[in-house]
Amino acid sequence: MFTYILDANKGLCRDLYDCIKRDILAGNLSAGQKLPSKRAAAKNLGVSVMTVENAYAALQSEGYLYSLPKKGFYVSDISVLAPPAAAAVPAAPVALPAKPAYRYDFAAGGIIAENFPFSIWAKLMRATFRRAEENLLLPPPAGGVRALQEAICSHLQQFRNMRVQPEQVVIGAGTEYLYSLIVQFLGRDKVYAVQNPGYPKIAKIYESNGARCVAVAEDSAGISTAGLLAAGADVAHVSPAHHFPSGTVMSAQRRHELLNLAAKEGRYIIEDDYDSEFRLAGKPLPTLQSLDSAGKVIYVNTFTKSLSPTIRISYMVLPASMVPRFYKALGFYACTVAAAEQYTLAAFIAEGYFEKHINRMRNYYKKIRNSLLSEIARSPLAGIAAVAEEEAGLHFLLKLDTKQDDAALKKKAAKAGIHISFLSEYYLPGSTQIPQHTLVVNYAALPQEDIPAAVKALSKVILDK
Amino acid sequence: MFTYILDANKGLCRDLYDCIKRDILAGNLSAGQKLPSKRAAAKNLGVSVMTVENAYAALQSEGYLYSLPKKGFYVSDISVLAPPAAAAVPAAPVALPAKPAYRYDFAAGGIIAENFPFSIWAKLMRATFRRAEENLLLPPPAGGVRALQEAICSHLQQFRNMRVQPEQVVIGAGTEYLYSLIVQFLGRDKVYAVQNPGYPKIAKIYESNGARCVAVAEDSAGISTAGLLAAGADVAHVSPAHHFPSGTVMSAQRRHELLNLAAKEGRYIIEDDYDSEFRLAGKPLPTLQSLDSAGKVIYVNTFTKSLSPTIRISYMVLPASMVPRFYKALGFYACTVAAAEQYTLAAFIAEGYFEKHINRMRNYYKKIRNSLLSEIARSPLAGIAAVAEEEAGLHFLLKLDTKQDDAALKKKAAKAGIHISFLSEYYLPGSTQIPQHTLVVNYAALPQEDIPAAVKALSKVILDK
Repeated sequence: MFTYILDANKGLCRDLYDCIKRDILAGNLSAGQKLPSKRAAAKNLGVSVMTVENAYAALQSEGYLYSLPKKGFYVSDISVLAPPAAAAVPAAPVALPAKPAYRYDFAAGGIIAENFPFSIWAKLMRATFRRAEENLLLPPPAGGVRALQEAICSHLQQFRNMRVQPEQVVIGAGTEYLYSLIVQFLGRDKVYAVQNPGYPKIAKIYESNGARCVAVAEDSAGISTAGLLAAGADVAHVSPAHHFPSGTVMSAQRRHELLNLAAKEGRYIIEDDYDSEFRLAGKPLPTLQSLDSAGKVIYVNTFTKSLSPTIRISYMVLPASMVPRFYKALGFYACTVAAAEQYTLAAFIAEGYFEKHINRMRNYYKKIRNSLLSEIARSPLAGIAAVAEEEAGLHFLLKLDTKQDDAALKKKAAKAGIHISFLSEYYLPGSTQIPQHTLVVNYAALPQEDIPAAVKALSKVILDK
Repeated sequence: MFTYILDANKGLCRDLYDCIKRDILAGNLSAGQKLPSKRAAAKNLGVSVMTVENAYAALQSEGYLYSLPKKGFYVSDISVLAPPAAAAVPAAPVALPAKPAYRYDFAAGGIIAENFPFSIWAKLMRATFRRAEENLLLPPPAGGVRALQEAICSHLQQFRNMRVQPEQVVIGAGTEYLYSLIVQFLGRDKVYAVQNPGYPKIAKIYESNGARCVAVAEDSAGISTAGLLAAGADVAHVSPAHHFPSGTVMSAQRRHELLNLAAKEGRYIIEDDYDSEFRLAGKPLPTLQSLDSAGKVIYVNTFTKSLSPTIRISYMVLPASMVPRFYKALGFYACTVAAAEQYTLAAFIAEGYFEKHINRMRNYYKKIRNSLLSEIARSPLAGIAAVAEEEAGLHFLLKLDTKQDDAALKKKAAKAGIHISFLSEYYLPGSTQIPQHTLVVNYAALPQEDIPAAVKALSKVILDK
């Protein structure tokens, strides 16, 4: 029986709780020991049954006691609550594969720091916070905040001649996340086709989400529709405006054929329009989304590419007829982008900063590309290199007349602190007829002032035998 | 044959491109028509073959021409490029299920606007931008930025006595997203167990990600280990510190049993520690993570709950031994949280603002809870309501002595503009012995000044027959 003298000033219940807990921690009450019944303890201590009941309940809720139905309360085995054994904490730091640092990077995405409009972004973010609206603090609706959905609609109308309603726009933290939503929505029993060659990550994402993914070859008009049929594809993931890394623009006919193919029950198209803003020449063809009258095209785009990886905001445009079904299936998810960021981007677009930024960046990239091309033309590389696909997007192809193996060249370059990637790296496993000796040159993150030295170093690597 | 007179000032290639394109758009060159060979056209127009080649290539890349191997270039069918048919754009706005607005909300999460430290956050964000570091513009590594990983480690050490290395921390845009990563990593062939009653969204997320999910009952010590075995569970998703909505705290023994159960090959525990910061009384037990010596516990927590839904940052702590395997499997993903936000939160934690905020909020919630409890005690509800689980987290249970059906009461309340939820709503389909008449009262988003009127209105709804 308890022999505590409880202090009413402290609160009888609180004091009883403290006393019992102290005795358990000190080992005076041992594991498995039965405590006196509430009634008996109350009588003995001169307090109400309610006081004991509350103290016992608090100790139980923290794991110091456990109860057995119709038997009473017992002391827990607190030895399992010992501080973590040394074994649980690795002595050496957890090893992660190290990422190499390069002097010159001809293969990276990303953008140059000074090009991001930090001060404007910070100003708009501050304004968003200053309003401190209630709705900043509510979880944004599954599709995103209305203001951003509307801003995206008017952007799409202006830049891509797409007529879209705000409800069709679903905002998410990166296209990779949106692809996983798409798999959850369309189903992982479907076969997803990606274009070969292509960005290997996309196939990885579908597979990681439990869907079967097939690689379908392209010809000069875009992904092969015969190939899609032969592979039994249900969903075609394509970038009609400009396919990476081959640079292929899907022809008008092929767009038509693809839409016809998708008209069949259960088939869909994912239109990945990731860098259409940066087309440096020519007028883009209409998007598949705007040609789609059957409700089969999900359009996906991102601000990560056009603004900066600092802005982790992507979106998809669902066919209007798909919207209610989508929210019924996946409307339980919270939007993955912070509300404050969404309001900031909405203001950035609505106040015209986005358009200005795109224009400025297009000119900047043109300048970098031209510097790089003329530097290559002046270098010893000129004799063995042919440029292709230099008008679209933020990369071009450089076909080298060399006998050296792609992998060997890449290794040699890495040793010299130069990051390069070859077209052959973008062919999915099992591909035949993989073109060799073709560099994929990404110039988005190459500083202008580095270009002469970078080309000189690259030239040395390639021409040195 | 072409009959254009090309203007050398304009650029021969550019002019040829323009002429052909104009003729295609005007219908003078019709779909399927074969163009002269490059050689023939060059001779005829008095330009180089290269000029024609470049013009044809540009037109092809924009879809105006297509080529057949060894045959030549043909005019595309541009009729498919007509502006989108009216049918593609719905005349009426896309219908989404409307969300009801409530006068008084006893069931919402979210927090009160004035409690979020907007100005500090904006200041730190501004400082982050001012530094405008290069690494702000690179995609953050898959696990998140190092500074935030480190800040989280020291927070966990201080608040939860957890010893964790930065590499073990994986940052993501919301716990929902992290659960989908976990399914991708542990596998969708595993059986995931959630606690019943529980937050229905968690089971939905596992199922939406293609994993089988089973509901396992809890007793007063936490989730039933016998139940886990009977259900064939491989992965147990638990909230040992405080289970929502029942308020159960997992006993020390049960923690021990659960860790023993998970020791078997292929079994894991997901420890969801979502609101441990807001425990209003008592000292929390050690986390399963810190008791885990076998590398079986993935710890998950979020800043969305403790800071605000405006900050969409959650994290998980992997067992050290799991880290290399995780990055091998899923390291290809980009982190879903913007780098700028991650640096801002890192500063917010490192400079002590997070701790201050937590303490301030804990006091604020205590005040709200106490106001609400005393208002209930003074109201006519007092005669028929018993409070339980009021010490942990941001909600308590209110057991009503009434004959009215839960669903009917909820409907009646909604009609009066009051949002309430019942414990019975958190039982998964197929549950037996579902407790009735028990309100789950969330007070996090209830403004202090509304409490008297809100309780009065609630009381009226419940007591009016």
